[in-house]
Amino acid sequence: MRVLISQLNPIIGDLEGNTQKIIQTLDFAREKEVDIVLFSELTLCGYPPEDLLLHPSFIDAQEKYLERIIRASSRLMAFVGVVRRNRSEGEKPIFNSAAVICDGQLLGYQDKRLLPTYDVFDERRYFEPGSASQIWEYKGMRIGVLICEDIWQHAGYVGYTQYQKDPVLDLLPLEPNLVLNLSASPYQFQKPDMRVKVCSKCARTLGVPVLMSCQVGGNDQIIFDGHSVYVDEKGNLRQLGKGFEEDQMLVDLDAPACPAPFNYDPVEDLYEALVLGVRDYLHKLGFKKGCLGLSGGIDSALVACIARDALGKENVLAISMPSRYSSEGSKKDAAELAKRLGIEFMEIPIETPFEAFLEVLSPIFAGRAPDTTEENLQARIRGTLLMAVSNKFGHIVLSTGNKSEMGMGYCTLYGDMCGGLGVISDVTKEQVYLLCRWINRNEEIIPQSIIEKVPSAELKPNQKDSDTLPPYEVIDKVIAGYVEEYYSPEEIAKKYNLPVDVVIDLVRRLHRAEYKRRQAAPGIRVSKKAFRVGRRYPIVQGWM
Amino acid sequence: MRVLISQLNPIIGDLEGNTQKIIQTLDFAREKEVDIVLFSELTLCGYPPEDLLLHPSFIDAQEKYLERIIRASSRLMAFVGVVRRNRSEGEKPIFNSAAVICDGQLLGYQDKRLLPTYDVFDERRYFEPGSASQIWEYKGMRIGVLICEDIWQHAGYVGYTQYQKDPVLDLLPLEPNLVLNLSASPYQFQKPDMRVKVCSKCARTLGVPVLMSCQVGGNDQIIFDGHSVYVDEKGNLRQLGKGFEEDQMLVDLDAPACPAPFNYDPVEDLYEALVLGVRDYLHKLGFKKGCLGLSGGIDSALVACIARDALGKENVLAISMPSRYSSEGSKKDAAELAKRLGIEFMEIPIETPFEAFLEVLSPIFAGRAPDTTEENLQARIRGTLLMAVSNKFGHIVLSTGNKSEMGMGYCTLYGDMCGGLGVISDVTKEQVYLLCRWINRNEEIIPQSIIEKVPSAELKPNQKDSDTLPPYEVIDKVIAGYVEEYYSPEEIAKKYNLPVDVVIDLVRRLHRAEYKRRQAAPGIRVSKKAFRVGRRYPIVQGWM
Repeated sequence: MRVLISQLNPIIGDLEGNTQKIIQTLDFAREKEVDIVLFSELTLCGYPPEDLLLHPSFIDAQEKYLERIIRASSRLMAFVGVVRRNRSEGEKPIFNSAAVICDGQLLGYQDKRLLPTYDVFDERRYFEPGSASQIWEYKGMRIGVLICEDIWQHAGYVGYTQYQKDPVLDLLPLEPNLVLNLSASPYQFQKPDMRVKVCSKCARTLGVPVLMSCQVGGNDQIIFDGHSVYVDEKGNLRQLGKGFEEDQMLVDLDAPACPAPFNYDPVEDLYEALVLGVRDYLHKLGFKKGCLGLSGGIDSALVACIARDALGKENVLAISMPSRYSSEGSKKDAAELAKRLGIEFMEIPIETPFEAFLEVLSPIFAGRAPDTTEENLQARIRGTLLMAVSNKFGHIVLSTGNKSEMGMGYCTLYGDMCGGLGVISDVTKEQVYLLCRWINRNEEIIPQSIIEKVPSAELKPNQKDSDTLPPYEVIDKVIAGYVEEYYSPEEIAKKYNLPVDVVIDLVRRLHRAEYKRRQAAPGIRVSKKAFRVGRRYPIVQGWM
Repeated sequence: MRVLISQLNPIIGDLEGNTQKIIQTLDFAREKEVDIVLFSELTLCGYPPEDLLLHPSFIDAQEKYLERIIRASSRLMAFVGVVRRNRSEGEKPIFNSAAVICDGQLLGYQDKRLLPTYDVFDERRYFEPGSASQIWEYKGMRIGVLICEDIWQHAGYVGYTQYQKDPVLDLLPLEPNLVLNLSASPYQFQKPDMRVKVCSKCARTLGVPVLMSCQVGGNDQIIFDGHSVYVDEKGNLRQLGKGFEEDQMLVDLDAPACPAPFNYDPVEDLYEALVLGVRDYLHKLGFKKGCLGLSGGIDSALVACIARDALGKENVLAISMPSRYSSEGSKKDAAELAKRLGIEFMEIPIETPFEAFLEVLSPIFAGRAPDTTEENLQARIRGTLLMAVSNKFGHIVLSTGNKSEMGMGYCTLYGDMCGGLGVISDVTKEQVYLLCRWINRNEEIIPQSIIEKVPSAELKPNQKDSDTLPPYEVIDKVIAGYVEEYYSPEEIAKKYNLPVDVVIDLVRRLHRAEYKRRQAAPGIRVSKKAFRVGRRYPIVQGWM
């Protein structure tokens, strides 16, 4: 029995393009004498389609495209992730389903039973849960089908939810000898490891091989990392799909046991996720070129490396925009990094527009001391220059703020926050250092002086981040404890041995900066809990 | 039997402040010799608390505050909207409940049974649905309790959902003689009328009076309009709570029948909703003052009127920022309107910074013709000036883009889109005219020349909106059909008698502008379907 686990990168809502990919996969499968083809969750429309699902014409169109796919399935069985209409009773009019098709026929559907409605998932907004599991028989196999979340409850890895059903256990009395899972499982730091464990647990409980097809690709903020899974009936990993790219993974269920090694570097993965996020955001929008402000600091240095690897060096423009407060070291470092990366570099000093703004504002600001207003002004001039270049030449501006800054609101709205995509807005300052050291693991790509420099916004004389902020290792602990784990300030203080008043102050700051984050560029999600996507807080609130 | 329908304006998460309001209401009720006090949905924490609900410490704290409220309930029965822990099985760990308290005792809870998970509602993300309805007996009354959505299914007014239960019908065999509803029902155009119909339908089905307590106040994008309801057992409206402000509505169930007149002006309501939205956003954040760019166009004229009525004329600063392309008429009109409104007015010409930007960009832009880059540059200089004034003096910037522009992306990111709050971003251009004529109904407050002027962004010589956009009445129809009703382009073309290719082009434009709206200021929601809150679309998508 030969199974093809198809790991595709669909574009959300591009039914024509996605259907072509599916049909090409079916052709490839026939060439390779495959029996069964397994696609990922909602392959046809891509995941997550969000409110496109509310358009009846979008559902109608999918039914038509599915007919084309069915006609293309001769001599194969295939499991294709699709939306299907709920034609009986139920709260919601559609299901998240696997269409089970075989040799030009539609055999039926397995509907997703557990609908995640937490974090980045809103499935109860759209879908009716499936009511039962069933077995599909083919060439002597008894196949059970689970869709993404259906397999996670059994391993206990679900968020803020205790489902009252376990589709894995429901398969037990049906005696399957093969389990297939269609997934669209978002990347987060160290997630590939969890996915293998979840498949192993299911395999051991049922005593059958488990195959999981995972979507790959960046869709707005969410990255799907691929890494499709084949574990044998003992729960041993036998094959792992490629990470961060499409893959067609041939599985021979009758081949002799030979466990796959599973060595992966979570830091490398994190880097690859960011690269894929930039590449897919731009390319799927039809853009080739990105630009960024290169300050000579560590954050923009990291983003420049990611952009180069995502878009190619000929498609990245770095702009240095020095002010009267920029250090010579920073200017030199920015130019040196651009040179080493081979990316285009230009310098636009901001002094002239800065003076122009100060001049027109001087009658109004007369008698008032300089304050953050003048600092923000410099950041906004830079944002305006980046956007002007973007408008004129068709670059997407890549914004360079990290998660620690975004958490604390240590960033200027419409200034350094300008951009189409927040490349590292879900990467903490500590992870920024980790990634830069990883980039430099074999040779010094990022000048060491950038990595060693004391963090500074350089918006006034002798400024350092630590003038205004506690150390980043403290901020990052508060973000981890409060944002990711929902600990109280008292629990955070105890766990990380911090003064509770420091923690409370930082949590308040975090909430106060919500208004800035609400207008931030969408940022690539790589943690358990990113700002914005999957995290919804009121701006006006009196809790903290 | 005397019931007090308490219509409060809580601050989300301000458990201390909200508890004080609740306890003051109980004191007032005793003074007025009331038997029963009815509060709105989630009175204690305010609605919608969003992800604050995921913090166990937030739930713990509510339990403590509820104890204080219970102790303050002597000689009264009260129904208080609270979160309660789910201590038995279920997907989610909390319920959205009414705590039933009486004379210092907690009698029990009625849990919300229908959990809206569509549009602006995400209740399945947090709550477990209640499993049954019950009757509370007090002084000869048999009281049934419904929480918000529980009463809407029966009248058929729910969105994208067909609940499989009807809590109204479930009350029928329990023979209540009074039904209470705790609501937090967001305002939208003409919604107060719907709410009365929903209560009437329930009253007629059960043959009992229905009392509905509605939350009032602005919470970020969502406005709650109050308008609490008392309908008698025949479904006739007997009393209506105040709109857009707190109210303590005394209901004597034994008073002789005397139907209340129900004449309301939906345009006045719309205006009041916007005023409340501005006032609550600023005041709940602790701000007093707002500023805006006053161009002499109709949109900023409307926002200036709203701001004056929301904040008081002494707290509004209007800034005219003329460019080389601004007409004399616009400059004069802006000054004249500010004078008539009695608000502070200043003029900052943008020519100096505009020239400074052109100068520093000239080496890079050499040989390229002016295009939208230079138009956006002017808008961004204005945004930067507004933010500088905001930073220096502590105003919140009110942004002035309307829904038709936001839909089409006819606005500049980080330019005229700057601001803490989008005042009219859910008001179509046609509604803008409607509101301005309503403002001028008794006297000319907005200069007629502003209303009559041909819409123009004035960013290049002799520019008119209609150079780039089809007429606003066409845009507004496409927004109504596509955004609010999910019609296909073909259906829109047919319904409004428009060429289908024009409709498709506008729908594509609408999707293409998603990236701008993602970074827009939160805007006050006043329609059935606003951008952003309650509307979730991918930026990268291939459907349209």
